[in-house]
Amino acid sequence: MPSSSVSKPENSSYSPLNSLYRYFGSAAAATMSPKKVTIIGSGNWGSAIARIVGNTTKSFPDQFDPQVRMYVYEEIVNGEKLSEVINTRHENIKYLPGKILPENVVAVTDLVKSCEGSNILIFVVPHQFVKGLCEKLVGKIPADTQAISLIKGVSTGGIERGGLKLISEEIKEILKIEVSVLMGANLAPEVANDNFCEATIGCKRKAEDGPLLKKLFHTDNFRINVVEDAHTVELCGALKNVVACAAGFTDGLGYGDNTKAAVIRLGLMETTKFVEHYYPGSNLETFFESCGIADLITTCYGGRNRKVCEAFVKTGKTLAEVEKELLNGQSAQGPLTAEEVYLMMKKTGLDAKFPLFTAVHKICAGEMKPAELVDCLRNHPEHM
Amino acid sequence: MPSSSVSKPENSSYSPLNSLYRYFGSAAAATMSPKKVTIIGSGNWGSAIARIVGNTTKSFPDQFDPQVRMYVYEEIVNGEKLSEVINTRHENIKYLPGKILPENVVAVTDLVKSCEGSNILIFVVPHQFVKGLCEKLVGKIPADTQAISLIKGVSTGGIERGGLKLISEEIKEILKIEVSVLMGANLAPEVANDNFCEATIGCKRKAEDGPLLKKLFHTDNFRINVVEDAHTVELCGALKNVVACAAGFTDGLGYGDNTKAAVIRLGLMETTKFVEHYYPGSNLETFFESCGIADLITTCYGGRNRKVCEAFVKTGKTLAEVEKELLNGQSAQGPLTAEEVYLMMKKTGLDAKFPLFTAVHKICAGEMKPAELVDCLRNHPEHM
Repeated sequence: MPSSSVSKPENSSYSPLNSLYRYFGSAAAATMSPKKVTIIGSGNWGSAIARIVGNTTKSFPDQFDPQVRMYVYEEIVNGEKLSEVINTRHENIKYLPGKILPENVVAVTDLVKSCEGSNILIFVVPHQFVKGLCEKLVGKIPADTQAISLIKGVSTGGIERGGLKLISEEIKEILKIEVSVLMGANLAPEVANDNFCEATIGCKRKAEDGPLLKKLFHTDNFRINVVEDAHTVELCGALKNVVACAAGFTDGLGYGDNTKAAVIRLGLMETTKFVEHYYPGSNLETFFESCGIADLITTCYGGRNRKVCEAFVKTGKTLAEVEKELLNGQSAQGPLTAEEVYLMMKKTGLDAKFPLFTAVHKICAGEMKPAELVDCLRNHPEHM
Repeated sequence: MPSSSVSKPENSSYSPLNSLYRYFGSAAAATMSPKKVTIIGSGNWGSAIARIVGNTTKSFPDQFDPQVRMYVYEEIVNGEKLSEVINTRHENIKYLPGKILPENVVAVTDLVKSCEGSNILIFVVPHQFVKGLCEKLVGKIPADTQAISLIKGVSTGGIERGGLKLISEEIKEILKIEVSVLMGANLAPEVANDNFCEATIGCKRKAEDGPLLKKLFHTDNFRINVVEDAHTVELCGALKNVVACAAGFTDGLGYGDNTKAAVIRLGLMETTKFVEHYYPGSNLETFFESCGIADLITTCYGGRNRKVCEAFVKTGKTLAEVEKELLNGQSAQGPLTAEEVYLMMKKTGLDAKFPLFTAVHKICAGEMKPAELVDCLRNHPEHM
């Protein structure tokens, strides 16, 4: 296991770099050695991103090692091992059927091996698995590895540990590495179809790490902006799911576009206030990025939280039941995030200032009827 | 015709004010005399607003004269005069059938008479009629009358007169009175159904006029915020129709939610830049009001400009044809606004900085194919 990220590029065809190694030794060449990239996760979103990253790494061989490893949690699908199908037929037949992955994306079923010597870890797993995966990687990755999280949600149980915890904070805390985030209006099936869209990278060391991370994800149809305000980017990605629940309730109750727009706007206002209060120093302009209003719109019209919450109101079934019926094994993050957010607000006595977030949690928890949602908004602090 | 707004309240039941008149004379009481309100316009939106204003004026008799006059352009509907139907059956059977107007809303078919002695004029007519109506009112209204425009669009032909002209500027120029604006996510049929929604009043003399204007429109289901940044409020109301055309093209081309969200976001960014450039001093926070993102969302999902532009792409018919087929005599403001905006940008050499606005105009004008829209956005200044 290498203890340093300074590793000679495996592919000896990179002659300019090989000359550098010979001439200056590995230390000088390290800063420009092609970065190894690992995708931790192979679900719908992870596979869609693998199609992008597989291609960008091939396009910039000076910057990236073209072999991209993808950690795959092994499953048997139609009698075949998923990892073997990916490595032979280059298709994730379970989570992204019908789309071919670039051949340089290699499935690895051993987490530690998949990250061996990696310089950039792309986290794209359901948020409840982050802690366990990170703990397995402690001491097994180069010290200057950096991570980028594509996970929209917050760490569950954060409140028991003293407050809301972002996924990036959880990764950083365990692995002691820099963690950026990538969020945006990116419904995975549409990204996999190469439909034009945008995304936002939040990167605290924007000047140093921003250009490389942009290069890793930016394509003709996946347009990246990089901002420094990483906490805001990440919280937008998590909190929009709470707002989408409210939008779903509104749809379920049969309200029209005006009411839904008001709910989305009030949700956005609570998001800005929440970020401002708990993570001071945010930049209002960040909410205008794809991670902000664009993702909020997409999620409130096309996302799964909206869908589940609409069905919850219309059918009268439990959230668990409608999730099972509608999401094909995936889960809706909104109710979980709403609970973490509510606990945080309750603890700090601020729940009354966030009537929409509070109502979403209470409705999901069965403590309030969906029909009461609009009453909570009529005297919203925004109207005072 | 009174030449001053200082008129004794007609309804002698207002005893506190009558005492004031007796004690201080009319000059002192004038500042608190009930304001007469006239609605200039009686279409779908005008009638929906009449339901609100009819009720608020009755609720605050100290502040408003409860008789609200509504200027009605006379039409014969099913053999009856529209004004007479409104004044006897209290229903606008042509433009808002099925909804009862408050009895204190009185239809007046003579424009000058409808505004006689009025302190507040609510303009809610198609934008092409504003100039003609205002010219008829010159010298016929009290000097300190104020207006509020609910018209979303810009003055056509503004560019020939030296640049883009806002509707509020047109009214002000002709009548020499203060003009505020009311904009927001307010599809008229839903407002008429009393669905919960929000709206924004832009009022340059916020401290003096804001509270009264808020009182005139604010109800349990129509929640008003007042901001000072009136130009931004009005431009949001006009430019969102241009963005909605782009959203409609996207829908017509069969793109998904991601692309539509990107188009809406880039449209919003161009809106902020346009306002900043042509009307410096705007406040970014105004875009978070109902007039900003909320109206943009509603219009890009439920509005008529979106609908017409989607059909334009799908059917291959002309814009005029699809408007005629889909809008029942109403018009889509987006293409007109896009043209005015384009001429303004072209004149000042800034069209390349606004690729979305430019593309919308060119597509509407038949100079560009709808399918080329996304290509124009791929290298948007926002991605540089």
